[in-house]
Amino acid sequence: MNYKSINFSEKLNLFNEHWQPKVISEMNDYQFKIAKIKGEFIWHSHKDTDETFIVLKGEIQIDFKDGKVVVKQGEMFVVPAGVEHRPSSNKESHIMLIEPKGVVNTGEKVDSNLRAENDVWI
Amino acid sequence: MNYKSINFSEKLNLFNEHWQPKVISEMNDYQFKIAKIKGEFIWHSHKDTDETFIVLKGEIQIDFKDGKVVVKQGEMFVVPAGVEHRPSSNKESHIMLIEPKGVVNTGEKVDSNLRAENDVWI
Repeated sequence: MNYKSINFSEKLNLFNEHWQPKVISEMNDYQFKIAKIKGEFIWHSHKDTDETFIVLKGEIQIDFKDGKVVVKQGEMFVVPAGVEHRPSSNKESHIMLIEPKGVVNTGEKVDSNLRAENDVWI
Repeated sequence: MNYKSINFSEKLNLFNEHWQPKVISEMNDYQFKIAKIKGEFIWHSHKDTDETFIVLKGEIQIDFKDGKVVVKQGEMFVVPAGVEHRPSSNKESHIMLIEPKGVVNTGEKVDSNLRAENDVWI
């Protein structure tokens, strides 16, 4: 059988658009998605699941209604289920998201124009 | 509320032993564990779950009965459930494992002297 590792930089070189997560791997019913982000996303939450952010390049901020966290390259943060949050990044940053398959990027705001197509592999 | 990111390097600086995964975060019923590895682990499998390897530093090899994969810094690989595998690293490497809470590092070989205590946070 042919086994091949997944290289984050190689995958990130394959696209340029912002806020459009691309799936690079699966583990059980979870997906690993990479995204380039810049500017401010919308406030949203995922009522049924936690959501993991790993910063591969740059520095992001996640705002909460009662605080915020800065997550830099080489760091991670898990947003608890149901907690309203708003990711942002002044300059372009590259992130990996880990969450169950089928999670919508805009959470409960399914009509947002920032809603990305789901399950797009790269 | 106080939100704090998790820095992989800071956590890795807190221990030196090999093949002893330390939990740094949780997402739903999954755990993120970091480990320092050097040399060869034992052949084993996890029959009920996939297991994710992310290499934070160095380069590891995962042998399979019918092949192998080299995973370098900035790369990941998901070992499918039930697949026998043997991780190794010539020089010390630093990895992050992602898998459901409660998974034993030696898989079905629960009596191995390489079995690590589970759910050890750092």
